[in-house]
Amino acid sequence: MTGSGPIFIPKGFKFSAVTAGIKVSGKPDLALILADQPASAAALFTKNLIVAAPVEVGRASLKQSRGRVRAVVVNSGNANCATGRQGIAACKEICRRTSVLLQASASEIFPSSTGIIGLPLPSGKIVSSLKPLLQNAGTSIENLRGFANAILTTDTRPKIASVPLRNGKAAVTGVAKGSGMIHPQLATMLVYILTDVAAPPAQLRAALRNACADSFNAISIDGDTSTNDTVLLLASGASGLQLGAVQREFERALLEVCQSLSEQIVSDGEGVQHVVRLRIEQAKDRSEALQVARAISTSLLVKTAWAGADPNWGRMLAAVGRSGIPISPAKITVLIGDQKVCVGSVARAFDENAAHRELAGPESRITVRLGRGKALLNFLTADLTTEYVKINADYST
Amino acid sequence: MTGSGPIFIPKGFKFSAVTAGIKVSGKPDLALILADQPASAAALFTKNLIVAAPVEVGRASLKQSRGRVRAVVVNSGNANCATGRQGIAACKEICRRTSVLLQASASEIFPSSTGIIGLPLPSGKIVSSLKPLLQNAGTSIENLRGFANAILTTDTRPKIASVPLRNGKAAVTGVAKGSGMIHPQLATMLVYILTDVAAPPAQLRAALRNACADSFNAISIDGDTSTNDTVLLLASGASGLQLGAVQREFERALLEVCQSLSEQIVSDGEGVQHVVRLRIEQAKDRSEALQVARAISTSLLVKTAWAGADPNWGRMLAAVGRSGIPISPAKITVLIGDQKVCVGSVARAFDENAAHRELAGPESRITVRLGRGKALLNFLTADLTTEYVKINADYST
Repeated sequence: MTGSGPIFIPKGFKFSAVTAGIKVSGKPDLALILADQPASAAALFTKNLIVAAPVEVGRASLKQSRGRVRAVVVNSGNANCATGRQGIAACKEICRRTSVLLQASASEIFPSSTGIIGLPLPSGKIVSSLKPLLQNAGTSIENLRGFANAILTTDTRPKIASVPLRNGKAAVTGVAKGSGMIHPQLATMLVYILTDVAAPPAQLRAALRNACADSFNAISIDGDTSTNDTVLLLASGASGLQLGAVQREFERALLEVCQSLSEQIVSDGEGVQHVVRLRIEQAKDRSEALQVARAISTSLLVKTAWAGADPNWGRMLAAVGRSGIPISPAKITVLIGDQKVCVGSVARAFDENAAHRELAGPESRITVRLGRGKALLNFLTADLTTEYVKINADYST
Repeated sequence: MTGSGPIFIPKGFKFSAVTAGIKVSGKPDLALILADQPASAAALFTKNLIVAAPVEVGRASLKQSRGRVRAVVVNSGNANCATGRQGIAACKEICRRTSVLLQASASEIFPSSTGIIGLPLPSGKIVSSLKPLLQNAGTSIENLRGFANAILTTDTRPKIASVPLRNGKAAVTGVAKGSGMIHPQLATMLVYILTDVAAPPAQLRAALRNACADSFNAISIDGDTSTNDTVLLLASGASGLQLGAVQREFERALLEVCQSLSEQIVSDGEGVQHVVRLRIEQAKDRSEALQVARAISTSLLVKTAWAGADPNWGRMLAAVGRSGIPISPAKITVLIGDQKVCVGSVARAFDENAAHRELAGPESRITVRLGRGKALLNFLTADLTTEYVKINADYST
């Protein structure tokens, strides 16, 4: 797991965080990314048909501004979801007030929210905190850490990943929050990736889609899809480097940042004790590999076996069998670590102690071979522990 | 929840159980239903593509015998799944030995197994117990209870439902085991329904399909699908009543038995504290209602909220949003008990204490209105507790 390397601050961005009083805990809950000049932007949003107000507003604003973002304003503690017209109005009001203070257009302010669903957003608290939020903005690593900290909810630690480009002439740096694919009550996956290379939004969008396919779209903590999920990529261009001139290096760096943040999210998942690197091999195509990975990684029986470090491959096999892919049982092989535990869907003698050790560590490897083709997928998931149930059952309104 | 009413033994059947030594606990683990004459039979099997040996053999035998069953031999403690050719051979050997003792055809012996996956079936233990198993067979309620008890695994209680026809001239009586939709390690849903009306297999099959749609196919404990699931309906004809002559009464009785057994299975689900009656209204059709019910009832966040009796409708709304149905958020209404908690996907003031009380009882009612049509579905599901995780994580090979 990464996240501990040096942090590079892409030029052209400032960061800030304050306590607006939304979180009951009194922790920082309002955060800002400020671009010196409107940055070029691309974003991906949740596929859930129930979407939060900031997702609706942010999507429309990006269209209106043609992919230009001056500032990102994030609140934690309230998801502003299922809040109807009032929620949209509150979100727009915050963008408008921010734009006035920055002498920018309201569509250049990108909003995000995460936290409790169905409660009115306390927009007054946010509006009255905007001035100090803007005044505090700075370019230091401390400022970035402040931002990363203020967007958390049930997360136990901030999530930052950073990769330099051209020996430090530019950088790709990402900040994420998320402690499950979704927790509409208390959490959501929000990701902000910044770079100082220069690129039009369409170019950013293509790069972001590719990077997300092998990172944020290939992880699962609990199989739910958020109403607020957002991945935003901003390019300030302040390094003077054109993306086209560093295309390969940029794409590699972007993927590395997205994968590092994905790993940080899964390993900080609610109640997670064991992270599982699930590899689906010999699939016909990628989408079929993803379907099998999701069937395995959302099976309660598989996830609870992992919690007990139990090399119970029968549960995984049963999940493959109901995944909806027209598999031939005689072609299915399952490996725990490097050991084959089941070949042709039939039990095979294996070292149970070694398999138990593989599963008992903080990270383990499971491979499923489908015998259908050449596509492969690396998927990141985790176990389901009593701690997860406690976190999500004991929170009572 | 039913299961406590009087039990009617359909004429033409005997029951028996012995301890063959498969279960480590030393509890009864081999059970028999014996028909005086070959009974007319219909069966439904798991849709999982990974199937246990008895499912393969049972399906082939029913075809070969043209839907005639003389005896059902069930073992618990070993699923005989992922056991390859040896597993098939072991299953056939048991059927062959039983048929010799009964002077019947091997294809008239219907096999079932439930228990641990991937271990060789101890067929020697079973074969040497067949004689006492056949000798013990009787028609008393005690015999039936013995059968119901010997097929259990993680179940905490036997499951029987019984409905008389024509004032007791005939009956429909069912026995089930299951403590989750599937637990390939330790459990599976097996259901045997007996009647003494007379009917050809095709007629039984049609009736069984209909009854299962509104019972066993509308429940979920943990979202997994077994490799061994079997529902078998046997008609001895010993009452002299033709099914055609009591069609409506029979269908109603069959549905009642299936629904009672479904309820008994869900309420005895692993770790279950709260049974939830989930009603999907205003769906376009039944299959779309089922898709929404399954998205809600397999969401970890929803199930853990239920465990905490938390009226967290936002989690249910988010599950509807990702169910794959092209819903209009503005048309979605959610009720907890009789209270609307969310209208048009927007929060609505409600009595949280009353909602909490509704969810805190042994049974609660949740209704989701989709605003898309007139189809409705009653679905039975349950919460996810730390006890479930313990049961399935602490079992270590």
